[in-house]
Amino acid sequence: MRHIKIFDTTLRDGEQSPGVALNHAQKLEIAHQLARLGVDIIEAGFAISSPGDFECIQRIAQEVHGPVICSLARLNKADIERAAMALEPAEKRRIHVFTSASKIHLEKMLKKTPEQILDLSREMIQFALQFTDDVEFSAQDVMRADPEFVFQLYAAAIEAGATTINIPDTVGYGAPNEYGRIIRTIHDDVVAGRNVAISTHCHDDLGMATALSLAAVENGATQIECTINGIGERAGNTSLEEVVMAIHTRKDWYHAETRINTRELYRASRLVSRLTGMPVQPNKAIVGDNAFAHESGIHQDGVLKHKDTYEIMNAELVGREAAVMVMGKHSGRAAFRKALSDLGYEFSDEKINALFARFKDLADRKGQIYADDLRALVESRTDVPQTFTLEGFQITSGLNITPVAFIRLATPEGSVEATAHGDGPVAAAFTAISQITGITPELDTYRIQAVTRGSEALGEVSITARYQNMHITGQGVATDVVEASARAWIRVINQIVAGMGKTKVATDAAESL
Amino acid sequence: MRHIKIFDTTLRDGEQSPGVALNHAQKLEIAHQLARLGVDIIEAGFAISSPGDFECIQRIAQEVHGPVICSLARLNKADIERAAMALEPAEKRRIHVFTSASKIHLEKMLKKTPEQILDLSREMIQFALQFTDDVEFSAQDVMRADPEFVFQLYAAAIEAGATTINIPDTVGYGAPNEYGRIIRTIHDDVVAGRNVAISTHCHDDLGMATALSLAAVENGATQIECTINGIGERAGNTSLEEVVMAIHTRKDWYHAETRINTRELYRASRLVSRLTGMPVQPNKAIVGDNAFAHESGIHQDGVLKHKDTYEIMNAELVGREAAVMVMGKHSGRAAFRKALSDLGYEFSDEKINALFARFKDLADRKGQIYADDLRALVESRTDVPQTFTLEGFQITSGLNITPVAFIRLATPEGSVEATAHGDGPVAAAFTAISQITGITPELDTYRIQAVTRGSEALGEVSITARYQNMHITGQGVATDVVEASARAWIRVINQIVAGMGKTKVATDAAESL
Repeated sequence: MRHIKIFDTTLRDGEQSPGVALNHAQKLEIAHQLARLGVDIIEAGFAISSPGDFECIQRIAQEVHGPVICSLARLNKADIERAAMALEPAEKRRIHVFTSASKIHLEKMLKKTPEQILDLSREMIQFALQFTDDVEFSAQDVMRADPEFVFQLYAAAIEAGATTINIPDTVGYGAPNEYGRIIRTIHDDVVAGRNVAISTHCHDDLGMATALSLAAVENGATQIECTINGIGERAGNTSLEEVVMAIHTRKDWYHAETRINTRELYRASRLVSRLTGMPVQPNKAIVGDNAFAHESGIHQDGVLKHKDTYEIMNAELVGREAAVMVMGKHSGRAAFRKALSDLGYEFSDEKINALFARFKDLADRKGQIYADDLRALVESRTDVPQTFTLEGFQITSGLNITPVAFIRLATPEGSVEATAHGDGPVAAAFTAISQITGITPELDTYRIQAVTRGSEALGEVSITARYQNMHITGQGVATDVVEASARAWIRVINQIVAGMGKTKVATDAAESL
Repeated sequence: MRHIKIFDTTLRDGEQSPGVALNHAQKLEIAHQLARLGVDIIEAGFAISSPGDFECIQRIAQEVHGPVICSLARLNKADIERAAMALEPAEKRRIHVFTSASKIHLEKMLKKTPEQILDLSREMIQFALQFTDDVEFSAQDVMRADPEFVFQLYAAAIEAGATTINIPDTVGYGAPNEYGRIIRTIHDDVVAGRNVAISTHCHDDLGMATALSLAAVENGATQIECTINGIGERAGNTSLEEVVMAIHTRKDWYHAETRINTRELYRASRLVSRLTGMPVQPNKAIVGDNAFAHESGIHQDGVLKHKDTYEIMNAELVGREAAVMVMGKHSGRAAFRKALSDLGYEFSDEKINALFARFKDLADRKGQIYADDLRALVESRTDVPQTFTLEGFQITSGLNITPVAFIRLATPEGSVEATAHGDGPVAAAFTAISQITGITPELDTYRIQAVTRGSEALGEVSITARYQNMHITGQGVATDVVEASARAWIRVINQIVAGMGKTKVATDAAESL
C-alpha cells in the first residue's frame, strides 16, 4: 500500500474563505485537533503576510507536536527568511515557496518572463534549503499553462533541491482525467524515479476537487492538500474528510492509505465550522447532518434487514455516534466527566468545574442532554479575555412595536446598563451592547442554527464582523436566540478589545494557490 | 457536439432528503422553474407511492410544458399502470422502471434469483411499452454487483425495448474511472450501436457524484440524472448546476453540451433551498454564497488587473448579478414592477399590488432594498390558504426572566389571543400559536439565516415539522427573527389545516435508486 500524505491547509488556504478570520487561540485549537487527527503536514499560515500570522505560526510550531509545520512564502528572500524564523521552534518544518505557471498570471500579475521565473525558482529553492531540508515548490494555475513550461519549471525545481512538488489547479478548471494525465507525465518524465513527492492542490469550482485529487493519486501523487469541510476561496478546496474516506473505503481501487484517525473527522468538522462560522450543508458528504441518514422506506427497510445494503461506511468510523441521551438534570460531576471523556474531551478539574456549572444550568432548562448538547457546551467555552460579560438583558418586541432591548454588562468599571431600539430584538441588543462598550463592529454575516433536537434546542449563533481593519468571528450558544446573539456579539467585542482580531492584508502580501 | 440530456429528479430522489417534504403547490412551482431552466426530463414522483404523489404527477403532467414528464415504477403491473395513469395528461411521458442488480440487494431485500429478475425485467418493460414508447430501465447498486449479471440484465432490457438504460451507483461507492469503465463496456458491448440512451445516476457519499457523472459522459452516457443543489438521500445526488457548468465550461474536454439555460440556475437553487428548507453551504460550487467571491489580496488584485486571472466562469452566466441597490422607500409601483421583471419575475396586477404593499412596509423599515431583498419578498409569497394570519404579537425575554409571548391571530372565528412562556421567545411564540390553533406540530429542524446584507438584514426562517403522519415545510421572512419564526410556524399550521402536508409512505411503497 502506498502511503498518501495529508497536507492540511485549513489554517492557510481555508482561512482565505470570504468572511472567515481566525484569531491565534482559534488557530491553535484547530492545529491541536489536526494533530489529533494525524495529518502529516499543517500549513499554519503565510509568515510574512502580517505580524499576527507570523506569531501564530510560531506558537503552533512551539506547541503542536507530531505533524510537520509549514509556512507559505513567495519567491523572495524576505518571505523565506520570515517563514524560517516563524518555523524555528518546530520539530519538523517545511517552507512552501510558490509562483505561477500560466501565461495570463505571468503577464498580467507577476509581470515576469518564463526565463525569469525559472531562474528565480532555482535560486529561491536553494535559499530556502539553508533553513530546512524540507522545501515544497508550487506553480499556480497549472491547468491553463503551457505544458512544456510547466514540465521545465518543475524539472528546475527538482534540480534545485525541492523535496515536494505541488501541482495546483488554482481556479478549479481541470477535468479529473486531464489533471491525472498531467500528473502522470510529471511522475514519469519529470520526477522520473527521483525521490521527490508529487502533491495535488485542487479547488472545487466545478464540484470535482475530491475526484481531481484522487485522479492525481491514481497517477503517482503521494500528497493531497486539503481543508476540513472543504473551506477555502470561492467554492473552496478539496475536503479532507472526503479524500480520506474515499481512500479508506476504496483501498481496493486506490491501493493506498492515509495515517488519519478517521474517528476524529467529525469533531474536526464541527470545530472548524463553529470557529469559522462556515456552516456545513446537510447533504455534505461524510460530515453533513444527513450523510448517514436514510429517509426512504425501501432504504430503511434494506438497512434494517442488512446494514450493508445501503451503507458503505458506518457513522462510528468517522466519529459520529447516535445522538442518544447521555445525561439528565440529576447527573453528577463524575457522570459529567465520564460523558465528556466518552466524547473525547479531557479537561483539568478547574475547567470541569466551570463547565459543570453551565451544564447544570442547561440541564435545568432543557431536561434531557444529548451528546450534541455537551459538544456545543464544551466548544462554546471561551479562551477570550472576559472584559465584558452579560449580566442581564431584557427585550420586548412585536408587530407594530419597535423592538427594545435592555442590557447590563459587567465591565472593568462595574455594571453598566443601556437600552436601545432596532429593527428587531437582535439589532436592538447589539446597539445597546455597543453603547456600553463604545465599540460598534460592522456585521458581515449572521447565522443561527439549532444544534440539538427538539423545540428546546440550543441555538448557535455565528457572527463574522469587521472593526477598522480587523476581521473577527464570534459564537454564542443558548436556548434563546436573542441571548445567543448577544453572547456572540459580546465575544466579538471582547476580541476587539484584546486585539485578537485578524488583520487581513491586501494585495501583495496575501497568499493564494 | 453530443447533446447530453438533463434528467432532473429533484422532485423524486431529491425529495427523499431526510426531513424534506414538498406539498403539491411547492412541487408545481419547482416543476415550472425546471421547465424554465430547460431540463429535458422531469421525474415528478413515484405514482403508486401515495394518492398525493399520484395527483401531483398528474398536475405537473397537465400544467408543465416542454420537458418529458416521468414517473418511477417498480417491476409490477400495478406500479406501471398507476404511473401511466398519472402521466396521461402529459405531452411527452416516460415510465421509469427499476430493480436491483447486486447480490446483497437481491438476496436480502428483493428475495429473488437473478433469473427471476431477468424475466420480470423483460416482461414489465414490454408491459410499460403499451402506455408510452419512452421507457427507462434502472438496476440499483450496479457498482457492487457481478458485472456479468449487470451486462446480461441491461441486454435483456434493451431487447425488451427499453429506450434508456440507467446505471445507478446507489450507495455512492464508485471511483470515477471504475464507473467510466463499466459505462464503456455497456456502451461498446451491450448497447453496441443500438439506438438506446445510456444514463448515469450517482450519489455523493464520497464527494464524487459530479465526477462520476462526467466519467460516464466521457465513456458514452448521454443522460445525467441529477438534482438542484445536489439534494437527495444521505449526501445527496449529483448537483445539476455542477454537471451543467462543468460541461459548459469544459466543452473543449467533454465535447458535449446541454440545453440548460444557465441563467436560471441561481434562481432554481434559491427556490429549491427555500421550499425544502435545505440550506446551501457558502462554499458550494456554482450556487454557494462564496462561489464567486474572492478574498485574498492577490486574487483581488489579479481579478482587478484582468478578470480571467482567477475566474473561469462569470456570475452573470449562472444568473447571479451583483447585489446592487435596486430600490428605495420612494420607489413607485412601476419601478417595482420593472425591478421584478429584471429579476425574471412576471406577475398579475393583483399579485403585484399585494407584493407592493409588503415592499413598502419593508422599505420603510430597511431603507435600501437590494436584489436579494426583492427575491426574498417574492419567494416568501404564500400559496397556502390563510386560515390563520398574524395580527399581532409581543414578546419579552431576558436573562433569568422566563420568556413570554403574546400572540393575536385572525382566525375563521375572528381575532383570538393567547399568551405562553417557553425556553426562549421563539418557543414561547410557537406555544401561543399552537394554543390558538389547537395544532401542535413536532419540530424537526429549525434554521435561520440572514438573506440580505447589513444588521437590518431580512432573516429567513425555515422549519420542517411533523404532524401525525404528515411532513410539512414552512418559511418566514422578517427583519425580526421572532416574527420570521412565528410566520413560518403559522405557515406550517395553515398547511396542516389545508391538508397540504406530504405523507411520507414507509417501507414497500417508497422509492430508491
